[in-house]
This record gives sequence, structure tokens and C-alpha cells, in this order.
Amino acid sequence: MGCISYVNGRYLPHRRALVHVEDRGYQFADGVYEVFAVANGHPVDEAEHLQRLERSLGALQIAWPMAPAALQLVMREVISRNRIDRFGILYLQVTRGVAARNHAFPRAARSSLVITARRLPPPEPAAARLGVRVITLPDQRWKRCDIKSIGLAANVLGKQAALDAGASEAWMVDDAGLITEGTTSNAWIVTKGGELITRQPDAAILSGITRHAVLALAREHAVRFVERPFSVGEAKAAAEAFLTSTTALVKPVVAIDGTPVGSGGVGPFTERLLDLYLQHLNQAGS
Amino acid sequence: MGCISYVNGRYLPHRRALVHVEDRGYQFADGVYEVFAVANGHPVDEAEHLQRLERSLGALQIAWPMAPAALQLVMREVISRNRIDRFGILYLQVTRGVAARNHAFPRAARSSLVITARRLPPPEPAAARLGVRVITLPDQRWKRCDIKSIGLAANVLGKQAALDAGASEAWMVDDAGLITEGTTSNAWIVTKGGELITRQPDAAILSGITRHAVLALAREHAVRFVERPFSVGEAKAAAEAFLTSTTALVKPVVAIDGTPVGSGGVGPFTERLLDLYLQHLNQAGS
Repeated sequence: MGCISYVNGRYLPHRRALVHVEDRGYQFADGVYEVFAVANGHPVDEAEHLQRLERSLGALQIAWPMAPAALQLVMREVISRNRIDRFGILYLQVTRGVAARNHAFPRAARSSLVITARRLPPPEPAAARLGVRVITLPDQRWKRCDIKSIGLAANVLGKQAALDAGASEAWMVDDAGLITEGTTSNAWIVTKGGELITRQPDAAILSGITRHAVLALAREHAVRFVERPFSVGEAKAAAEAFLTSTTALVKPVVAIDGTPVGSGGVGPFTERLLDLYLQHLNQAGS
Repeated sequence: MGCISYVNGRYLPHRRALVHVEDRGYQFADGVYEVFAVANGHPVDEAEHLQRLERSLGALQIAWPMAPAALQLVMREVISRNRIDRFGILYLQVTRGVAARNHAFPRAARSSLVITARRLPPPEPAAARLGVRVITLPDQRWKRCDIKSIGLAANVLGKQAALDAGASEAWMVDDAGLITEGTTSNAWIVTKGGELITRQPDAAILSGITRHAVLALAREHAVRFVERPFSVGEAKAAAEAFLTSTTALVKPVVAIDGTPVGSGGVGPFTERLLDLYLQHLNQAGS
């Protein structure tokens, strides 16, 4: 990440960004996180991310490390100290704090807050448009995937399995054979009838902020969509497929488990949504 | 924990036991752990713990941080520096190491190793014999509970729910209504017919070392037992119930969801197993 990180009240050179071994994030995955795109020096969809952070903290009964307004100031300071005047990414993690190891909530711990950030080149439309391959595998995660928990071991294993198979992402499949989401993204298909489908937000998926923005754009531009689960078979038979995340934006999926989706190229529907989303990004904070 | 901790090659005062914020244990729960009882200055059931550590590391494809024989020497050094000449506890955590945040396995990271330890008073048989109350709640964990993962948020929430309900432990229940295990322990019942029951080791539970030792003692002393799942109803109708863990030893369970188990006191069967287990502990390393 960038050269200055924030750790519990201090702005530090990243190499000195340290936490105690008994921070409950390290011993229990007892914490949550958010990843913000930064465009024109401002966190994109900031209010939505902070609302989701509030839900995640509430679900784990973790206190805000500071008032949200103060947190926004710290985020801006991290962006500024890392000179992210155009595009970049900001990572924010809150844990239940440091306490002698014991599963039960500590009585006196203060929530820990870590923020890192780095500059990135702005998304290049031609590169954003390149399609990726996905595989499917069983969803082995816990039953509260609606919480943006740092307990990501199943996601790590799934992502690595995808890379080992020559793909970029793994779409996880529940016991009913329905796709939940990707290891770092939400999953979408477009039927041959021209209907956009993505799973409804429930405990089986994380309700993505990019997912939400794309649905808002679909609504605004009169794109027909439905939020419901879809099967691996439906996905392989779709006209188009794509995934969304803060870092992948709207990413065309051109093959699922080696089966080409539609023509095997990038479809016009996905391309249009990507263009709309790139406009949304560029408008952020400007 | 105690006053000296081991962190990636250094023995440090515990307050200075720090890891980097991009240690994958902190951002992804990408690591595993073991907790050893220490008796007479020696780790109890050391070989079994190290075998389980090997299985956990293998399942996550994490490399040993050093050869197991070297690890054993470091454990002894931590025990010695913390002057645990009689009884105590040793916590050991291995993660995939430090790398710029990315779900995929890093190419170059070295596994992190943290060991903490502290002295404790030796188990006092009268205190060990005191019964505890448990509640039941849905098992919300992932599908690889056989891995001793540091991703423990569901266990933390379950343990806290138990304490909030005036109990000491929560027994988690799968979708079929069968008890898997406790948030920090394995679950056992004794039927009115005098049969000992505990769930078989599969991906739904962590195969506890104390569980294993108690089964070995049962075998040695011709106690009739079966490894199979049991329901909440069976547990409430049992003659006796208890739980096992490295720190709780063999702990009588006197009530489940407020329903007294058997007479509501500590049963003779549990008491006998506890006595056998205390002998096993005292023999360790001597």
C-alpha cells in the first residue's frame, strides 16, 4: 500500500504500521472492513460504504472507533498524505480492539482502526472492458456473509483456486446449486431475453456498493432487472455475464468453468453498464 | 498473557509483541492456531497438537514457519522465559505472512509465527468439578470447522451469547437439529443406558485433543462409547453431559437451555472421566 498509514491515532510510515498480536482482529477475525475507490481525491459512494460499515459493526456489536464524521476527516487526511489527487484505493478496518485472549467480548477494549491507501492509475476504459474467466465451486463460508467480516479464509482459498485454474474469479455455489457471489465480487447475468439478474441481498451475500450503484443506474436508464438467485446452468446459458466490485468495476465474464458465455466475447449490455459506471466514478466528488 | 512473547524470530516483552497491519492473519484470518496446556513445564499432548497443526496448515496451503523440531525448541524457550515450571498455557499462531493486500496467495511471503504463554495455577480438582450451564444456538460457522482457523467471529458471538444468557458455553446446532460442538469445546452426553456419545470428527467439528485423550482413556478403561451426532432433545434427556477443551478439561454440564441435565448435579460418569483426565495431565512430561 502507500507510504503513510493510519493506526489507532497515528499516521505512520507504512512499514511501521503495526498492531498488537492480541488485537482481536489477529486472533479471532473479530472485525470488519471497507474498501473505497478514490476518484478526484474523494472516496466514491462514501455514504453507502459508511452505512454498510455501521451495519457490519452493529451485527458484531463493535463500537465505532470514533464518530463517523471524525472518521471521514481521518480518511481525507490519509488520502491527502498519500497524495491521491486523482484515482486510488482506501482500505479501512475496524476490530474490537486489544485484550488478553478470550473469546468473550472484553469489557474495556477500545475498537482498533487501521486505514491504508495508495494511488492507482485511473481506470482505462479499454482495459476495464477486457473479459475474464470464472470458475464455480462450493460456497464454504459462514452464514452471515452480509457482514463485511475480515474472516476471509474461504474467499482466499476460492480466489486462489480460480487463479490455479487459469481464471480470475470463483463464483460460489450454495447447497441448492445457486450462485451466491464471487470471492471478491457480486455475480450478474443477462438472459437471452435481455433481463438483468443478480442475487437479492440476504445473509448469503455481501450487498456490494458497486452492485447497488449498478442497480441504481439500471433503474435510471430503464434497464429491466430482477434480484433473484440463479443457477450455474442458467449462468452458462446466459447471453452475457459480468461481475462487480469496487476494484473490478463492471467486469465482463466471458467463460464459466470453461464454457463460453454467449458469443464468448464482451456483450453490448455489459459494455453499456460499464460505460455508465465509469461516468458515475468520474462524477464522484467533482 | 505472560511477559515474554515470540514474534517472527524475536523474544519480546509482551507489550511490544507487534505484527504488521498487512499480516494476512489481520486482514484475511489467513492462519491457524493451537493452544497447549503446559504441565510440569512441558506442553501436554504435544505430538497430537503438532499433527493437528500440520493438518490445518496443509488445508490452507500455508508453509510451516520453521521445521517442527525447531518450533518445539522455540515453544520450550517461551515456556522457560515465562518461568512456567508447573502449569500454564501456550498459544501458537501461524499465518501466511505479510504481503500487500490481495486475496490470492502471495508469491514471496514467509509464514508468520507468534507464540505467547502464561503461568496459571494448576487445575484444582474441586473447582474443575463445578458444573456449568450451556445454551444452544444455530451453528453459523463455515464448512471447514475441522481446520483450526483463526476465523472465529461466529465462535466469539456464540460465546458472548452464552455469557449474556447466564451460561458458560453455547452448543451449536446444525440444520438437521444436531449438536456440532461448543464455541471453544467439544460436546458430550451420557445416555441413561450408560453410553458415552460425542460427535464423530468430520468437517463440522474441530477434532479436539482433549476429546481424543478422553476417548483414549475411555477405551483404556473399558467405557462404552460411540462417536455419532446427537440432537438437542437427546442432550436434554441425557443422564449426564460434559464438555472438553484444553482449558476447561472435562467440565460437567448441569443445564442445557435452562433444562437440568439428569439430576442437575455432577454425575459419577463425568466425575470419573475428569479424574482420569487429571491423572493424564499430571503425568504429562513427568
